[in-house]
Amino acid sequence: MSDTPEMPETLDFPELMTRDLPSGVRLITGGVTAAPGYRAGSVACGIKSDAGTPDLAMLVADAPCVTVGTFTSSRTPSHTVVLCREHLATAGQRAQAVVVNSGNANCANGERGMRDARRMAELTGAKLGIDPTLVMVSSTGIIGRPLPMDKVERGIADVQVSADGGPIFADAILTTDTRAKTIAVEFEIAGKTVRLGGSTKGAGMIYPNMATMLCYLTSDLAVEGDFLQQTLRSAVADSFNMICVDGDMSTNDTVLLYANGLAGNTPLNANAPDAALFTAALRHVTRYLAREIARDGEGATRLMTVHAQGAASVDDARKAARAITASPLWQCAVAGGDPNWGRVIAALGASGADEMDPDRIAIWLGDVQIVDHGVAANYQQTAAQKAVRGTEVTVRVDLHLGDASATAWGCDLTHGYIDENTTYTR
Amino acid sequence: MSDTPEMPETLDFPELMTRDLPSGVRLITGGVTAAPGYRAGSVACGIKSDAGTPDLAMLVADAPCVTVGTFTSSRTPSHTVVLCREHLATAGQRAQAVVVNSGNANCANGERGMRDARRMAELTGAKLGIDPTLVMVSSTGIIGRPLPMDKVERGIADVQVSADGGPIFADAILTTDTRAKTIAVEFEIAGKTVRLGGSTKGAGMIYPNMATMLCYLTSDLAVEGDFLQQTLRSAVADSFNMICVDGDMSTNDTVLLYANGLAGNTPLNANAPDAALFTAALRHVTRYLAREIARDGEGATRLMTVHAQGAASVDDARKAARAITASPLWQCAVAGGDPNWGRVIAALGASGADEMDPDRIAIWLGDVQIVDHGVAANYQQTAAQKAVRGTEVTVRVDLHLGDASATAWGCDLTHGYIDENTTYTR
Repeated sequence: MSDTPEMPETLDFPELMTRDLPSGVRLITGGVTAAPGYRAGSVACGIKSDAGTPDLAMLVADAPCVTVGTFTSSRTPSHTVVLCREHLATAGQRAQAVVVNSGNANCANGERGMRDARRMAELTGAKLGIDPTLVMVSSTGIIGRPLPMDKVERGIADVQVSADGGPIFADAILTTDTRAKTIAVEFEIAGKTVRLGGSTKGAGMIYPNMATMLCYLTSDLAVEGDFLQQTLRSAVADSFNMICVDGDMSTNDTVLLYANGLAGNTPLNANAPDAALFTAALRHVTRYLAREIARDGEGATRLMTVHAQGAASVDDARKAARAITASPLWQCAVAGGDPNWGRVIAALGASGADEMDPDRIAIWLGDVQIVDHGVAANYQQTAAQKAVRGTEVTVRVDLHLGDASATAWGCDLTHGYIDENTTYTR
Repeated sequence: MSDTPEMPETLDFPELMTRDLPSGVRLITGGVTAAPGYRAGSVACGIKSDAGTPDLAMLVADAPCVTVGTFTSSRTPSHTVVLCREHLATAGQRAQAVVVNSGNANCANGERGMRDARRMAELTGAKLGIDPTLVMVSSTGIIGRPLPMDKVERGIADVQVSADGGPIFADAILTTDTRAKTIAVEFEIAGKTVRLGGSTKGAGMIYPNMATMLCYLTSDLAVEGDFLQQTLRSAVADSFNMICVDGDMSTNDTVLLYANGLAGNTPLNANAPDAALFTAALRHVTRYLAREIARDGEGATRLMTVHAQGAASVDDARKAARAITASPLWQCAVAGGDPNWGRVIAALGASGADEMDPDRIAIWLGDVQIVDHGVAANYQQTAAQKAVRGTEVTVRVDLHLGDASATAWGCDLTHGYIDENTTYTR
């Protein structure tokens, strides 16, 4: 120990976290408990087969928050998704807690599934002394097995929450993820410092549409509910709705954003001067977390980023970018470090984009232009190979038909994905 | 050698070929040369890297045929697909030959690609002494590399065709397929015996929409073109358009049906008494060939057949059945012999079917009902496992919402698929 005055701690944030950080937004630690007024924690109650692994998590706000969510568009949603939608409608964009179990999706369990989801909210509400409609419920894991409610009840009784429990919460919501995915930022709104933090989980069955796998975001912002809902929806459209691991949309995709108002700012709405800063901060957080899901996809060894530009419409740009991330043949080529760009062309052709002129397409792998006017450009094969052999692979496509663009994220397809999924329920 | 009188040859046809054979339709041998008036053959001209492997095939009719086709709906189609469409329009549903190369898809090659496709038709026309617009051209293999036209020209010059060349043709059109896929049938139309034969290839990039990978069908039927086109379109919708290996739609999908009229029947149309028999025969042939593509998908170890019934519309039934075959997670479960039916539920939820009530869904694996009213039925796990561990896996889904049904075919997803595709162009 030295006796020199204590220096402010210098934190090393990962490059992917700082990348494209908007001006006026600073990285901080703490995840879902970075903002004041939130506590979180977890417990191992035996839902997962590997005993001792945390599998029940709880996040609690000191008071009801403005709360908005986006959920899977699956026609066979989890009972917990049905309950979340119902509670948010009943309570009018307000909630105060979420209880999450991993290891069981509570989906395709019929009336019993709905009853169990409700029971989780009731037990959590009773423990916290709040109305059960203020409790959100999430489940993730195997589909079609009833929740072991004895274990869940014990878990809800035993779980302890604390103001530094964010990282513990982040670990407990994982399933086949190899690492937790957390970020937090702060910024000034009308002279008040506001924090925004979140954690997410992904790994498999990742091809969100309207929402994504589980993601929890907390802030001490004071904000109007409709503005918050609209801002979240837009941020999700450009982040979680643009990732793909395997093209399988989940039954349980859920993004929840809580804002408790403790920052003390005048409640933010779309007309406030700082609305754009909050929007930028939220978009940074959701983009980072979504990209982390892609990077940690089941069996993934490379993060794939696809920029589609020059599209006739944003919808076309999204379809083009997503189609490339969702092509198993191109995912295999990326796994093998093989710049087999014909599969990118095929994915574009099958993308469903309304406007596509094969003779105008340009493609870059990293900085190497490999396609010009729809045919092979004059490139070095070794340079193209290098561009698809790192831990990050960037594909840029210019359709040369307009001004619209979109970015999607995915990963490669390896033996690891197959190994994770051949005997998942055994 | 015995001196007993020669008995008529008893042929053993595979069970999958005889399955659901319509009444009045008999299996015969010969493939695309089963009908009189067709000759076929192949040559190894060095397009494929493994020298000596046949990679250029030709099919020739003695005279122009009524000819109809269906093609990929890709927005980046192969130059050969563009040329086939153009030639069929120019010649008015007539053609007399097809030249096919494997090893190179002639896609994304720009003006040179169109020129090379035209050149293949011209060289073939000159060799056969027919108008080049009567020549169809197909290519299959790597996308984005110019055709090695010196080799192709030599191949077209050297290839020999014969009236028993059907099996040789069937072998030469393959790429990563492990076996040829051929069938032929005969039946009586207005007292005349008519033959119909075909060969197809598949393996990867298999998720046809409007058409499929390469398939060639020949018949000596006399028939009106519009009836033939409509009958083919309907047969393709229920066969090739219902198979999936990997969800990647190809740029080159092509089905061509030639009818030379040598059977001497009055040209068939929709009002003829025997129209239904021809339709049944054609549907048997296309269903068999499509199923063979699924069974021989890259890395496949099990054929998956999915029957969706009780749907509110045929479109919903098709979407439901196809979604299950296209789910990589369910494909992995099938590979592992793991009856993880939650993934079937998730696939149904994400299928895009308009009407879906989770609480009505029933699912069988083979004869074992595993889901009843949307939740786990009372079944033996060992029986369910047995149902997904054979070379054929049958999934039956009843949505209990209406009378519409559809059948789709797919395969499991194994390391073999990844191994085939990580270094395809190296």
